[in-house]
Amino acid sequence: MSEPVNSTEVKSPSYDLSKFQLKRILTNNSVRKSISLLGTFPDLGTDDAIVVFEKNAYRESDVATASSEESPKKPSYFTADLKVDTEFINNIYGSFQVVPTRNLCSVKSTVIYPATEKHIEKYSVSQKYLIRETPDLYQRITLPYLTSSQFSLEWVYNILEHKQETERIVYEDKDPKTGFILLPDLKWDGRNVETLYLLGIVHKRDIKSLRDLNGSHLDLLRNVRQASKDAISKLYGINPNQLRIT
Amino acid sequence: MSEPVNSTEVKSPSYDLSKFQLKRILTNNSVRKSISLLGTFPDLGTDDAIVVFEKNAYRESDVATASSEESPKKPSYFTADLKVDTEFINNIYGSFQVVPTRNLCSVKSTVIYPATEKHIEKYSVSQKYLIRETPDLYQRITLPYLTSSQFSLEWVYNILEHKQETERIVYEDKDPKTGFILLPDLKWDGRNVETLYLLGIVHKRDIKSLRDLNGSHLDLLRNVRQASKDAISKLYGINPNQLRIT
Repeated sequence: MSEPVNSTEVKSPSYDLSKFQLKRILTNNSVRKSISLLGTFPDLGTDDAIVVFEKNAYRESDVATASSEESPKKPSYFTADLKVDTEFINNIYGSFQVVPTRNLCSVKSTVIYPATEKHIEKYSVSQKYLIRETPDLYQRITLPYLTSSQFSLEWVYNILEHKQETERIVYEDKDPKTGFILLPDLKWDGRNVETLYLLGIVHKRDIKSLRDLNGSHLDLLRNVRQASKDAISKLYGINPNQLRIT
Repeated sequence: MSEPVNSTEVKSPSYDLSKFQLKRILTNNSVRKSISLLGTFPDLGTDDAIVVFEKNAYRESDVATASSEESPKKPSYFTADLKVDTEFINNIYGSFQVVPTRNLCSVKSTVIYPATEKHIEKYSVSQKYLIRETPDLYQRITLPYLTSSQFSLEWVYNILEHKQETERIVYEDKDPKTGFILLPDLKWDGRNVETLYLLGIVHKRDIKSLRDLNGSHLDLLRNVRQASKDAISKLYGINPNQLRIT
């Protein structure tokens, strides 16, 4: 299965985001400026949908001004288009609400549809615990849980089989034993290199977690590390020592 | 000075934010979606200006849909105005860039003009250290430093004397010994009650820090605590046990 079959595009659910109907807010993170919503697309039925909005981080070009380094052709806050409402000015301190040109108002949105109970749980506020998992605990508790209630891996196989996200692939090594596909993670905004987040998906399909790794996987791991560093350096101009590889 | 003199408005510097000229980016926080800039307003001279942008957190009304509790008259993401660009869809996961109606594109901006070297330092990235300050260290090192290089307190006196921000006052007790003014902090976006941030400024002018507090200030402290709780509960409907008072 690691050699791409002649890929036929998989049908994806098609919804109109503006017709989302809210059931409730799952989380609202006022630090990150993100919000997760549970609801439905009534036009399409009663299946649950999760919609996440997260405001985009600033790019240097967003705040470039005429004489600064960035090309002045990209949209910037500092144009006559900037709408400014003064909240107050006291001595040297001023507070405003501004609206930049519409090109700079975009927001990243992630949609999971149809969403399962487990997705809803994942996007809801929950208590977090730190647990030291022994090999015994893993065998008796974690593994049975993983086996019985894993998220569907359909999206992973779609990528490996070139059925979806083909044009997003950053690097591919087709070797069935040591090969992998590198591509942007769903969580990355795809815009800011400072928050770059790529995912390496190996062609081997029998590794569930770190627990399954042993000496026989060294060639695979070394290949993923080196080839990813090279590809990222070439494509994004990032020095390997600025990466966090987990 | 604690009784407001018949207040004459103080002249504030007047600049056109869109004519800001960037010198350099001081900090770019991709988690908080905020950016601090150093530059000038060339029309007005060569004084340094600091401009900070921080995207607004989500309000419930931003994501309200027809049948949800919030009044449908406030602007919402979910209208025909929503512009949607699909980045990719893979199985049940979709990623988009959306642009909501212009009413929901506003960004909080804070301007310090003219800005001193100390302001620039404050808004730049810096190493932070945790230090246990003994009374002796305070007397020998901290106090002389405070005395010699404090930020101007002009803005504080402007508030106490009703020269500026008068309309922003949330609560005022004019007693010269135990009185204070409560008003929104510059850092609060003024929109989301979840991030509510108010500042209490006491009329007494001889308290530099916690170090100067003693038993004689108990009436003042108790008054600030109780009157603030009451005012916040009345104005924002927040239960006192949900407040963090520092």
